[in-house]
Amino acid sequence: MQLLKDKILKEGRVLSDTVLKVDSFLNHQIDPLLMKEIGEEFANRYSDEVITKILTIESSGIAPATMLGLVIGAPVVFARKRKSLTLADNLYSSKVHSFTKNETNEISVSRDFLSPDDNVLIIDDFLANGEAVKGLLDIAQQAEANVIGVGIVIEKGFQQGGQLLREQGIRVESLANIKSLANGQVEFFD
Amino acid sequence: MQLLKDKILKEGRVLSDTVLKVDSFLNHQIDPLLMKEIGEEFANRYSDEVITKILTIESSGIAPATMLGLVIGAPVVFARKRKSLTLADNLYSSKVHSFTKNETNEISVSRDFLSPDDNVLIIDDFLANGEAVKGLLDIAQQAEANVIGVGIVIEKGFQQGGQLLREQGIRVESLANIKSLANGQVEFFD
Repeated sequence: MQLLKDKILKEGRVLSDTVLKVDSFLNHQIDPLLMKEIGEEFANRYSDEVITKILTIESSGIAPATMLGLVIGAPVVFARKRKSLTLADNLYSSKVHSFTKNETNEISVSRDFLSPDDNVLIIDDFLANGEAVKGLLDIAQQAEANVIGVGIVIEKGFQQGGQLLREQGIRVESLANIKSLANGQVEFFD
Repeated sequence: MQLLKDKILKEGRVLSDTVLKVDSFLNHQIDPLLMKEIGEEFANRYSDEVITKILTIESSGIAPATMLGLVIGAPVVFARKRKSLTLADNLYSSKVHSFTKNETNEISVSRDFLSPDDNVLIIDDFLANGEAVKGLLDIAQQAEANVIGVGIVIEKGFQQGGQLLREQGIRVESLANIKSLANGQVEFFD
């Protein structure tokens, strides 16, 4: 997706060979118009499928997932990273390790909002080692839902998450796939 | 906002005299079409103002704030509840106590995304005791930004947050204002 790649090149900050900061439009400040374009691109990529539920994880997955939901008219469910007092029981749960934050969270989704009747598309902002997506897949499998595939805004293709998912036969669509962050430069695949 | 009130009456679950659960469309599952309507309603309420920045807090404020941003073409900044390794310095911070979750979080916003030039509208999903909004106001004041007002999806008007803010001269627009949750029934003001 050229618009996204241009934005990454213009505003992304390479902090190391593995860390790209895109806080100006995705992870802290959000560019709503770009999010709408991203939602439309996900809808186009998966236009051959009927999606009944979009599954993402708080917080940075919510904006792109909600814009996709607006385009295709499907509800979004975001997995929570901690249990709150009003969301205590009746949960699917899984464990997710974040290398960026160096912590392991239990993520959970209410059983009320995922069922065996659902065709689920998983959306997330970044795909690196694939930990978050694996947790969301685990939750979808607990619900016996049908997982159509995964939509990622920015894949770090030099890390193993995308490869591991694709080797399992899972469809992964990344709107920007980064080949390298070496020497402070963003290089994309293709 | 009648559409929102109808949705609350249809899908909201009154868990006690103070707790209303709207996990089916706002706090866990998100209804993107309703969020778009909510964004348009906030835009209408504040159509007399020029908004340069929408300030909210993760996670449930993100969807309505981003839809407002789409309608008016303004960026959204969401305050984070914990520091991450990629968002460590250069922050405005404040403390927010959540009565629902019974915990105090430090919330923070990067200094890169709020400035004295900004006309800020604060958006949040719920207003009860006003703790989250007070934290966001504190952050906007640290940035010396101009706060236009506050937009709330659901105000619990029987709690004191809204009154305290309005007594300070802060404009608060709530799309649904709840008078009482007694006897398991949702009763609105007006």
